[in-house]
Amino acid sequence: MQNSRLAVYPGSYDPLTNGHLDIIKRGLELFDQIVIVVLVNPQKQYLFDVSERTAMLHEVFAGEKRIEITDFQGLLVDFLRRRKIMTVVRGLRAISDFEIEFQMALMNRSIEPAMETVFLVPSIKYSFLSSRLVKEIYQLGGDVQSLVPGPVHNRLEIKFSGGLSLS
Amino acid sequence: MQNSRLAVYPGSYDPLTNGHLDIIKRGLELFDQIVIVVLVNPQKQYLFDVSERTAMLHEVFAGEKRIEITDFQGLLVDFLRRRKIMTVVRGLRAISDFEIEFQMALMNRSIEPAMETVFLVPSIKYSFLSSRLVKEIYQLGGDVQSLVPGPVHNRLEIKFSGGLSLS
Amino acid sequence: MQNSRLAVYPGSYDPLTNGHLDIIKRGLELFDQIVIVVLVNPQKQYLFDVSERTAMLHEVFAGEKRIEITDFQGLLVDFLRRRKIMTVVRGLRAISDFEIEFQMALMNRSIEPAMETVFLVPSIKYSFLSSRLVKEIYQLGGDVQSLVPGPVHNRLEIKFSGGLSLS
Amino acid sequence: MQNSRLAVYPGSYDPLTNGHLDIIKRGLELFDQIVIVVLVNPQKQYLFDVSERTAMLHEVFAGEKRIEITDFQGLLVDFLRRRKIMTVVRGLRAISDFEIEFQMALMNRSIEPAMETVFLVPSIKYSFLSSRLVKEIYQLGGDVQSLVPGPVHNRLEIKFSGGLSLS
Amino acid sequence: MQNSRLAVYPGSYDPLTNGHLDIIKRGLELFDQIVIVVLVNPQKQYLFDVSERTAMLHEVFAGEKRIEITDFQGLLVDFLRRRKIMTVVRGLRAISDFEIEFQMALMNRSIEPAMETVFLVPSIKYSFLSSRLVKEIYQLGGDVQSLVPGPVHNRLEIKFSGGLSLS
Amino acid sequence: MQNSRLAVYPGSYDPLTNGHLDIIKRGLELFDQIVIVVLVNPQKQYLFDVSERTAMLHEVFAGEKRIEITDFQGLLVDFLRRRKIMTVVRGLRAISDFEIEFQMALMNRSIEPAMETVFLVPSIKYSFLSSRLVKEIYQLGGDVQSLVPGPVHNRLEIKFSGGLSLS
Repeated sequence: MQNSRLAVYPGSYDPLTNGHLDIIKRGLELFDQIVIVVLVNPQKQYLFDVSERTAMLHEVFAGEKRIEITDFQGLLVDFLRRRKIMTVVRGLRAISDFEIEFQMALMNRSIEPAMETVFLVPSIKYSFLSSRLVKEIYQLGGDVQSLVPGPVHNRLEIKFSGGLSLS
Repeated sequence: MQNSRLAVYPGSYDPLTNGHLDIIKRGLELFDQIVIVVLVNPQKQYLFDVSERTAMLHEVFAGEKRIEITDFQGLLVDFLRRRKIMTVVRGLRAISDFEIEFQMALMNRSIEPAMETVFLVPSIKYSFLSSRLVKEIYQLGGDVQSLVPGPVHNRLEIKFSGGLSLS
Repeated sequence: MQNSRLAVYPGSYDPLTNGHLDIIKRGLELFDQIVIVVLVNPQKQYLFDVSERTAMLHEVFAGEKRIEITDFQGLLVDFLRRRKIMTVVRGLRAISDFEIEFQMALMNRSIEPAMETVFLVPSIKYSFLSSRLVKEIYQLGGDVQSLVPGPVHNRLEIKFSGGLSLS
Repeated sequence: MQNSRLAVYPGSYDPLTNGHLDIIKRGLELFDQIVIVVLVNPQKQYLFDVSERTAMLHEVFAGEKRIEITDFQGLLVDFLRRRKIMTVVRGLRAISDFEIEFQMALMNRSIEPAMETVFLVPSIKYSFLSSRLVKEIYQLGGDVQSLVPGPVHNRLEIKFSGGLSLS
Repeated sequence: MQNSRLAVYPGSYDPLTNGHLDIIKRGLELFDQIVIVVLVNPQKQYLFDVSERTAMLHEVFAGEKRIEITDFQGLLVDFLRRRKIMTVVRGLRAISDFEIEFQMALMNRSIEPAMETVFLVPSIKYSFLSSRLVKEIYQLGGDVQSLVPGPVHNRLEIKFSGGLSLS
Repeated sequence: MQNSRLAVYPGSYDPLTNGHLDIIKRGLELFDQIVIVVLVNPQKQYLFDVSERTAMLHEVFAGEKRIEITDFQGLLVDFLRRRKIMTVVRGLRAISDFEIEFQMALMNRSIEPAMETVFLVPSIKYSFLSSRLVKEIYQLGGDVQSLVPGPVHNRLEIKFSGGLSLS
């Protein structure tokens, strides 16, 4: 067995939700250390830029020694090779997730056969939660306090109202 | 983190296929020890009885110290509690698997919240392989040597031809 | 608008689960009266016979004037025509449900165009619950008290232990 | 039972199709009054602006007293609370619909537990029809007269050719 | 290009439905000759035995020179090799079909790489039609005359009423 | 039987992948001639413009007399009518493909009843391959040489590096 106590949990985290937290907590039961990688894809548009997304994660996991937070622009496989970690954690909420994740896992494996994707199921209460939905609800005036960690909620408020009040 | 280097891989194994082997091999990259549990459900009909199914597994994993083989009649959750192992490994071949596995994972979690199901994806070449298909192909006269380990193939031959020639 | 305050909720109820109860409760918010029809299909095998299944429903809904309980052997469409009720309620727990229910709704509509199926989603906590699972868990020694109403639990106990103690 | 003879049928209606009409007609068999809500999401781009989408609905349902047409920018749940209507009607054409609608229904219920989504299946002849497809076919020169009501067809013609002939 | 004007359309045909007829008609637009193979699986239980299923097909396709009807017990791949036909036609009604057919197509291809499965979609009016449903509706007293060809309907009547009256 | 030895294989080909090649190769086993149609939808954004996409196809199929390459802006059905070819070939990689293709096939058939869509399954090794994925991997610095034909790889290199170095 390789030293597989390390796992990577990649994502956009635009923004981090309580569903992501749930998966991370479950991952910490299986692995000694989880490296959260904030992926940067120049073709995609984000609400929060990479420094904001990374900062939110640092705020939420402040003092948690078993979590490492970093960002990466490029193919996930290249990150894994550079760090010599071959285990990736992903959450599966529903069937639509599964098809996309399945395709990604097989594609990644075709590039790097040693890479393994470990799928975990979040708590059923997060089965309908996504970053996209959080942004949509917030922008339509809804309350997302039960859907994201406190530091994320603060940054949503700053981005939408604080930012405007300053200008 | 609990001591999660142990994981249970439950199934009917009626019979063991190369797809199961693939998942076990991947599981051994993540865990120190895997306990293969041959489940016995009195409501189900099997081609091989539990002693045959267990014997096949012993033949295939002879000398492999990181694999333990046992059988169990009852709820999987009861087995996990008795053995104090809260991690279960399951393979996901396709969407139909996912729905059933997802439902089982959530049901098990509702009974035992500490229980975690870890899903792994087998090699794409096994994505259409199942115990049911092996039995169907064999019984229709097809060649299943590339689909099951040698000891399983031997037992299929004994069950269908050898058995008859003796009677 | 026809008088659509009546709706039929058909099923096998082998046995009734808390998921069924949840759908019935939601149906009573939409309709004045719900006719629960215990379907009898001579080709199917049931754990509880039709009189037991009907009796359980009467025990659970004793005194509830807006619920009518009956049984029927034949095509659902024939029951609807006889009773002149064209609205059917069905629960949707997951995608596998949806495909089957969708097919049934379209088939029924092709036989009786006036018939309408109204789909409701049960509480997320029942999304993995089915009669089949209740029977399987009970028979494997699991606790199903949180999954079925009291009278159903009593009948499960009588069927499996009481029956044996008498013989 | 609350007074549930009222139901809301929310959507983008960009534009209204015969599939929407089919669901509305079915809804009128179940409810006394249907409130069609044209949703406005500032993050989305529409072919027709909200006044055009609302005007089309008024043209199609002119004189129909059991239909109310309005628009709303915000969370659907806020509209429901303001109007004290807790029943929402949605159509299910296929599995891809189901996953999205299921997620929305559970999310809305988590915000407002009293809210109920009632799913209806349109006529099978509309199972492949969507506003997106109507726009795509029209813009590629196809005939959509059998897919949308007359007033919608007129507005498509004005938008694409009339507009050009004036400039 | 091999001489691929021949195609095999395999199935249980227990019994033949109008959905099968629809696929055959579409297949005759693509191929010169279609070989309908009535599969016999000793592990399965049929309502009609193989001679009845074959007879029904002969009655329906009497005089149709481009249709050949035969039966086969064994692996489909063995039939194809014996007949030197590598093209198989299958209908896809819905997603549940697709998963099973996809798995079968990939499995068959792994055994015989030259084999090709061609999928056709039946008329939308048959998208909910299956042999299983025909049997269930008939046995519950429903009218299936619009779902099966005349000769099949006659045989259903003989099997259920005529058969009994003679005994 | 109409003269159905001709089939159309429509797509965006932005860019052509080895998955497309696999389907074309399979199609040539069934049809005498395949017309590859590069579709142009003014509402969509492409990486390669239509002349580049067509040129790539010509490079890959140079000298192949049974392949015709053309482009078309408009409804596929209009192209088919103009060319009097009623057979369309499409590949099915997974369930998500199926839903979209199924909807398209039924929609096209509603416009032109004579039109038939023939679905083929690519080699399992291409089941996760798409034009979108090729572009994403390439732009993130990954190696796509095993995923696209040589001429397509050259054009990707020119578009991204060569193009920039010249300007």
